Amino acid sequence: VAAAGGELEHISWIRSRVVDRPDVALGIGDDAAAVRLPSSADCLLAVDMLMEGTHFTIPPATASQIGRKAMAVNLSDMAAMAGRPLFALVAVALNRQLGVDFAQGIFAGLQQLADEFDVVVVGGDTNIWDGRLVVSVTILGEATGCGSVTRGGAKVGDWIVTTGRFGGSLEGQHLNFRPRVDEALRLHRAVSLHAMIDVSDGLAADLFHILDESNVGAVLDADTIPISEPVRFANDGKSPLQHALADGEDFELLLTVDRDDGRQLIDDPPISVELTKIGEIVEPGTYEIVEASGRRIPLTRSGWEHEF
Amino acid sequence: VAAAGGELEHISWIRSRVVDRPDVALGIGDDAAAVRLPSSADCLLAVDMLMEGTHFTIPPATASQIGRKAMAVNLSDMAAMAGRPLFALVAVALNRQLGVDFAQGIFAGLQQLADEFDVVVVGGDTNIWDGRLVVSVTILGEATGCGSVTRGGAKVGDWIVTTGRFGGSLEGQHLNFRPRVDEALRLHRAVSLHAMIDVSDGLAADLFHILDESNVGAVLDADTIPISEPVRFANDGKSPLQHALADGEDFELLLTVDRDDGRQLIDDPPISVELTKIGEIVEPGTYEIVEASGRRIPLTRSGWEHEF
Repeated sequence: VAAAGGELEHISWIRSRVVDRPDVALGIGDDAAAVRLPSSADCLLAVDMLMEGTHFTIPPATASQIGRKAMAVNLSDMAAMAGRPLFALVAVALNRQLGVDFAQGIFAGLQQLADEFDVVVVGGDTNIWDGRLVVSVTILGEATGCGSVTRGGAKVGDWIVTTGRFGGSLEGQHLNFRPRVDEALRLHRAVSLHAMIDVSDGLAADLFHILDESNVGAVLDADTIPISEPVRFANDGKSPLQHALADGEDFELLLTVDRDDGRQLIDDPPISVELTKIGEIVEPGTYEIVEASGRRIPLTRSGWEHEF
Repeated sequence: VAAAGGELEHISWIRSRVVDRPDVALGIGDDAAAVRLPSSADCLLAVDMLMEGTHFTIPPATASQIGRKAMAVNLSDMAAMAGRPLFALVAVALNRQLGVDFAQGIFAGLQQLADEFDVVVVGGDTNIWDGRLVVSVTILGEATGCGSVTRGGAKVGDWIVTTGRFGGSLEGQHLNFRPRVDEALRLHRAVSLHAMIDVSDGLAADLFHILDESNVGAVLDADTIPISEPVRFANDGKSPLQHALADGEDFELLLTVDRDDGRQLIDDPPISVELTKIGEIVEPGTYEIVEASGRRIPLTRSGWEHEF
């Protein structure tokens, strides 16, 4: 399909802003990019597609925030593997009405975050249409010497630990969160991470991804789950805990480690972002939250189901 | 954002169909895929986004054809670099109305072609929305021992050579073309390829990509340009040559080699797909087509401009 003049100009503008790095043999402007990986470690690959109306709305999201988020969710995927991000590709379907400034704003937001994490944008595909905005970022990273951390390694007796706080992200934090790439790498050096995921679907839903892949159960301690400021005093019929378990897009890390490593993480945290033990891994078949009263209620993918 | 039940089912269906390979340490189902590259050669990366209404319409395109094309255009990018494709990621925004069968059809078409080219789909991102269908495939490949072939290596005196025929692809061929991956690898082993591109924008437009990047000019021989069957007797006001130069989406290879290598390719072709010398690289500033009469007309990105 013939690239419209605007698309070619946009590509040329992007190309002029990307700084070359020795490991980029060939960057933007050819049929493919050619890159050199620093080691023979596993190469990590992830893609996330953000769609207008689903992952953001315009307004309130600005062009720069949309671009930033498109890069951030991919960086968060690398964090979830305890991987080091290296290169990115950006495919966009731009709505014609948004105009060139908006298109450049997306790229600027995206690239600023890429720069902060030493990620080079090496290629992409820029398209213009009458449909809603779609931004798809692919990230390539590498596992560190410790290997990558999957969802499948949780063991009975593990502590369930989180970074940061949960709930209310859709009030704005989902556009501004800082992916936990550095934190994941530090945690991975400090202890043996058994399983890890970044919380996008929701704390409960993503915990179930770990439980499913690891074939284990979990018991959470309701009182310990770290609740974010915006929902602590929420007054919308849902409790702060429900928000924390179900809202999603917190992009914090949810991980499991054995008891000794868990104690070490809590007693001598290797990162400045808060670490909290929220529960323990148990035999498969048990999925519960223990309330302060001692009452045990069932934990579900969407948070909890109150018993009447 | 919470994945809808349908999305999770679709991912599970895809996952059940992907065959594992020893170089895939971790396939679909985690936050990222982990793959092992066969060598320390340059890693090639490309992404192409196909959008309903721009790159295909439904109908006539079937689900399987859309999936096939999404994979094929990426394989064609690898061919253009003379690279070997290895792994792919698939991000889709599915229109809710299309239904599960359509979604599975896309993946089936895509995977069938991936299988033919020994490419493993290692991950993706499946989304459902009310917008039009978007399919974005990222491909990771590797350069061969001969290195990769860019758009920037054409030299004055080079022959300009094409595979296959041009024009009329939008009549259907754009949904069914076979990417020239194997042909590119064979050509690359046989001779020293100076510059190469796959023809997506159009023969003339893509030739200009080579001319721009190589800072050279070109003179084409009108009579030699291979015209595809469907446009040979076109009766729409445009000549067959105009179609061949401007239609696009032929996904044939356009390459330059020195005179001796060019002679060798034509006299002793290393591939069964037809190879044609269509012109020569000249000093920058000259962009012409020579008609049978000997008349020289200006060559432009959109084909030619007739002088009156």
